[in-house]
Amino acid sequence: MFKAKAYSAASKTSPLASAAIPRRDPTERDVQIDILFCGICHSDLHYARDEWHEVMPAVYPCVPGHEIVGCVTKVGSAVTRYQAGDLVGIGCLVDSDHTCRHCQEELEQFCPGMVLTYGSPDRHGTAPVTYGGYSDSIVVDERFVLRIPPNLDPAGAAPLLCAGITTYSPMRHWKVGEGKKVGVVGLGGLGHMGVKFAHAFGAHTVVFTTSPGKTEDAKRLGADEVVVSKNADEMRKHAGSFDFILDCVAAPHDVNAYINLLARDGNLTMVGAPDKPLPVAVFGLIFGRRSFSGSPIGGLAETQEMLDFCGRHNITADVEVIPVQKINEAYERMVRSDVKYRFSIDMASLKSE
Amino acid sequence: MFKAKAYSAASKTSPLASAAIPRRDPTERDVQIDILFCGICHSDLHYARDEWHEVMPAVYPCVPGHEIVGCVTKVGSAVTRYQAGDLVGIGCLVDSDHTCRHCQEELEQFCPGMVLTYGSPDRHGTAPVTYGGYSDSIVVDERFVLRIPPNLDPAGAAPLLCAGITTYSPMRHWKVGEGKKVGVVGLGGLGHMGVKFAHAFGAHTVVFTTSPGKTEDAKRLGADEVVVSKNADEMRKHAGSFDFILDCVAAPHDVNAYINLLARDGNLTMVGAPDKPLPVAVFGLIFGRRSFSGSPIGGLAETQEMLDFCGRHNITADVEVIPVQKINEAYERMVRSDVKYRFSIDMASLKSE
Repeated sequence: MFKAKAYSAASKTSPLASAAIPRRDPTERDVQIDILFCGICHSDLHYARDEWHEVMPAVYPCVPGHEIVGCVTKVGSAVTRYQAGDLVGIGCLVDSDHTCRHCQEELEQFCPGMVLTYGSPDRHGTAPVTYGGYSDSIVVDERFVLRIPPNLDPAGAAPLLCAGITTYSPMRHWKVGEGKKVGVVGLGGLGHMGVKFAHAFGAHTVVFTTSPGKTEDAKRLGADEVVVSKNADEMRKHAGSFDFILDCVAAPHDVNAYINLLARDGNLTMVGAPDKPLPVAVFGLIFGRRSFSGSPIGGLAETQEMLDFCGRHNITADVEVIPVQKINEAYERMVRSDVKYRFSIDMASLKSE
Repeated sequence: MFKAKAYSAASKTSPLASAAIPRRDPTERDVQIDILFCGICHSDLHYARDEWHEVMPAVYPCVPGHEIVGCVTKVGSAVTRYQAGDLVGIGCLVDSDHTCRHCQEELEQFCPGMVLTYGSPDRHGTAPVTYGGYSDSIVVDERFVLRIPPNLDPAGAAPLLCAGITTYSPMRHWKVGEGKKVGVVGLGGLGHMGVKFAHAFGAHTVVFTTSPGKTEDAKRLGADEVVVSKNADEMRKHAGSFDFILDCVAAPHDVNAYINLLARDGNLTMVGAPDKPLPVAVFGLIFGRRSFSGSPIGGLAETQEMLDFCGRHNITADVEVIPVQKINEAYERMVRSDVKYRFSIDMASLKSE
């Protein structure tokens, strides 16, 4: 066991602050990683503030962070895939049961025994729960370590590990590609990745936004069209025309306005997670045989596929790099959607703590 | 043009009463049919009472009925598929535009130019709108006429034309079959057909009901298990286990209780059409990549496929046969769900009017 530097929250009302946390010495199958960058995901804030208490009650101290890019410093004796010096990533999962049907199908994100990167019981007994990536290092089973294409900027690559795979996976699942018309609702951390992927898949990509001011940026990110969703006339023009819509909005909103834009057999997938149920008009689903669904992250194999795709298409998140000391300020700005489009913490800043 | 006997409503508050209506003389492609039986669908009541005003405002006088079984009496000169004496059926559609992509894919139920069996503008100009099957005869383009397998009881076959295809189509679309676990919510006109089909497809079939008294009947219809949905313990035992759930309930109800019973990638399809939006919890969709959808009737080819399937498996609806003079009473009983499981009007009773 060794001590690592980290930023942790002591309670749901505490700001994040510098702390020392225990990390295990690498076992046979483990990879030890010096963390270079960690993206800030909205889930980090929800967890740190215990806002998802009913689904996943927080345990304190908590160290969030599941968009991790780092450099391998040490590997266990049985590790075959990685060696010191490799650029690697860790996403939302650090272990699973390896035996259930989901694991056998390489869909570990559905494994009932999955271990989240932070806040899950720590099977190694190093700490009560797992500690995430707001830290200078982490030790992870090699099966949950991903390879980062070396051409990608590591700060911008970090958010691929959650925001990237969360938007990539449903587009693959619902067969987004050339000849398809795809909508992205909400241009934030998830949405801006959704636009990049839809565009890279060759789909006609339409961004829905409440802010006309985002039009130019949406086009820069890859949108073919931008629709101001408050404008009923603009919305009506697109009625019944979308094959797929990715809804990245976590606030309450009228999903029926978007469901009505779906073509026959079209699907709207939620990756934003509003905490209150959304009212869904059943007639809108029946006429058009439309479906309304949700999607979490992806499995390990698909996450690697996504990273390799990003390497080939030179896709990273648009990030604002901050020192770890600005996390609390970044949380406040994230609540106000005041970031284009993801914060990425430069962990070099932790050395001075 | 000739006069046909019918039962029609003069306004949204009028009871249905005997009336004479115009029918066109068969054109080249038309089939003239003596109606033997017509099922009573909940839509008939909604339409006659103008309860779906916003989606489909009623035009009076209205003659409902779209679960029609009859005998061909006359065919136009260009008709090739039918001849006098054939046992045939008419469902919810009597025409479409024949050119759109939906028609080209044999999915006429999505054609923007579809002509409903009742209440659609009548392209032949015989009447302001089409008149349905509460009548002694009907004249329909042969492309919208279906063949009824002769081994089926015609009274019980009539509801196949709407209740049958409405439950068969989504099960085919979502690939219900052997090795699948399928739930049916609500044991009424639609639900009892859903149970028969799920069973005939070889799925493990579970009926959800609020009435423990329906258990025995559900099993007789083909259910392997019956779950009383008010019993939280019983419900919990089935968490995360269903591949497909067919929800036939048109009243407000908690769909999340059923969505949570879906396995990974499971689908819940609404065929019941509550007029108010249903609150859907997004977390329940995200964890499990589940989907919530709707489905209308089927296309003509699929409806014929369903009828042929019913012929091979000897499937008809369980009906209570009534004379046409009891329609208004039947409507009241239908509102109270007091029918096992569908009314079928014996049109011979219309001869005395």
